[in-house]
Amino acid sequence: MQKKKGGQSVIFQYPVTIKSTASIVGPKEGQGPLRDYFDLTLDDVMAGQKTWEKAESKIVEDAMNLAVKNSGFDNSHIDFVIAGDLLNQSTATTFGVMGMKIPLFGIFGACSTFGEGLGLGAMLIDGGFAKNVLVGASSHFCSAERQFRSPLELGGQRPPTASWTVTGAGCAVLSNAGEKPYITGFTAGRVIDMGITDANNMGAAMAPAVVDTLVNHFKDFNRNPAYYDVIATGDLGYIGHELVVRLMSEEGFNMSENYTDCGIQIFDRETQDTHVGGSGCGCSASAFSGYYYKKIKQGEIKSMLLIPTGALLSQTSQQQGSNIPGIAHAVVIESSRQDR
Amino acid sequence: MQKKKGGQSVIFQYPVTIKSTASIVGPKEGQGPLRDYFDLTLDDVMAGQKTWEKAESKIVEDAMNLAVKNSGFDNSHIDFVIAGDLLNQSTATTFGVMGMKIPLFGIFGACSTFGEGLGLGAMLIDGGFAKNVLVGASSHFCSAERQFRSPLELGGQRPPTASWTVTGAGCAVLSNAGEKPYITGFTAGRVIDMGITDANNMGAAMAPAVVDTLVNHFKDFNRNPAYYDVIATGDLGYIGHELVVRLMSEEGFNMSENYTDCGIQIFDRETQDTHVGGSGCGCSASAFSGYYYKKIKQGEIKSMLLIPTGALLSQTSQQQGSNIPGIAHAVVIESSRQDR
Repeated sequence: MQKKKGGQSVIFQYPVTIKSTASIVGPKEGQGPLRDYFDLTLDDVMAGQKTWEKAESKIVEDAMNLAVKNSGFDNSHIDFVIAGDLLNQSTATTFGVMGMKIPLFGIFGACSTFGEGLGLGAMLIDGGFAKNVLVGASSHFCSAERQFRSPLELGGQRPPTASWTVTGAGCAVLSNAGEKPYITGFTAGRVIDMGITDANNMGAAMAPAVVDTLVNHFKDFNRNPAYYDVIATGDLGYIGHELVVRLMSEEGFNMSENYTDCGIQIFDRETQDTHVGGSGCGCSASAFSGYYYKKIKQGEIKSMLLIPTGALLSQTSQQQGSNIPGIAHAVVIESSRQDR
Repeated sequence: MQKKKGGQSVIFQYPVTIKSTASIVGPKEGQGPLRDYFDLTLDDVMAGQKTWEKAESKIVEDAMNLAVKNSGFDNSHIDFVIAGDLLNQSTATTFGVMGMKIPLFGIFGACSTFGEGLGLGAMLIDGGFAKNVLVGASSHFCSAERQFRSPLELGGQRPPTASWTVTGAGCAVLSNAGEKPYITGFTAGRVIDMGITDANNMGAAMAPAVVDTLVNHFKDFNRNPAYYDVIATGDLGYIGHELVVRLMSEEGFNMSENYTDCGIQIFDRETQDTHVGGSGCGCSASAFSGYYYKKIKQGEIKSMLLIPTGALLSQTSQQQGSNIPGIAHAVVIESSRQDR
């Protein structure tokens, strides 16, 4: 059978199981609306380490190991790790997974990383190259602020369009055997540049990439938004979410019924002062690994489209006046197998 | 059949062809021993751009488009791009491939990136998820020096153990149909940390990762070094090459006959003043895409093991006193199919 659906999408012949997940978040995320769903909430953003970057690596390490433990496997059963983060040269991942002694495919898709990892991991399993793959992504508010904007000690004021980088990691063990949920399809995203240059308005920068991926997804699979119980983008926040609803409406798709965003869900708008919501690789990774995975397991959600979304900028590209392109990868996660 | 060979390796059931390559390098690389093999040598490291980073993106863009042109395809035939670079948040890749409008899997493996991409790309094709995949990696001497060490304008003195980051990009179009050469196997690397902390001696930092991957490769495939006409690591340079020969000898493998390093080959030791040799994602990518690809096409090399090798550091991890772990991915490239 043909696994490439044409366009930008693939389907999986042998259903790939999400055998287990793990999510570890910081104290602020642990006070948000999803608080009851995370495996572990840290008391302190330092996670017992001396620097923010080392704290992020520690969170990755612990979440990766917890995901493997939750799967019932040990490290020797995991064929590959596919993971990434926002730090320069992905050091949160490098130092986080080093001790596991499992071959690593490092990936970078900014905050789309978790979606990219789920897609690649499912392809390696369905293709017969791996039985079990560990996928993960992370971010840390303090390391991200220092790297992308300005050191926290400066006390810079955040504009109302800014998002709050999630401190956390989400990891999943994908497997060729097991119970629901299953990854049944995937649409890979393209780099889309619509001329946004404001690093404090990343929702607007990423929205066109989401629309590009969504339109292609619905076309490739011959579906419409109503097919899914839930459609959740990665971390567009309120402004980006609204933009997607409007832009998709112009494309002829009604996204007003079942579409939300992990960045909207992870913080409380009224009490947590995060402006447009959460962001960072760890946002969709921990929201899925914590909240959605359990909702699907429990049968409350039967099918969802998870679309982690990334803003592809660096401090250097910003300083050189480059635009902020976006990218979004869409993962179909369902509670029933679609054997073909 | 079983495509996972156990251990860290996979074999390909349907031979994956390297349909075409393209290599673009800077003026210094174009004066080195491989000068006759590159598709294009730039007159100027700026490549007509205003910044080094934008120059690197331009080199990526031109090399990617040239690889597609050389394949006889157009962009609409390419299912996915798999690519990465050394710049923070992989911006050389983002801005380089943006105009192609092809779905992107961004990867990061430092200077092992080209090997990671060839391995993943071959799996996506052999797994039936893609017909054609474009793989690429790049680096730029000036953008790398500024980012990892110090701005060129400071005129810092390079210690004798330092390598010279290659300005260049190498790209390959992998396909499910076509003539030799074929990618017939792949061994994924693990993150290996042996306690090296000197960013000016990356050959030593990466050598243990090469040894780990090589030993596992020979074990997984039940081969020894003599199986290959050529074994070429990515960019260990003279010191790392010597270390690999010695460490492999301790493991019982004779690497003294057919083992070289792209970092050694790309510059002339006597006249080009690059100390231990070339490095950077673009080193093995351009050396393979330029030199080796043509040698295999011409029949002078029948089988080679290409092992791009990465040093996993950032300026931040260095400043925080972290070690420099390494990673190495091994790609088997042969002139005859091994149908199984």
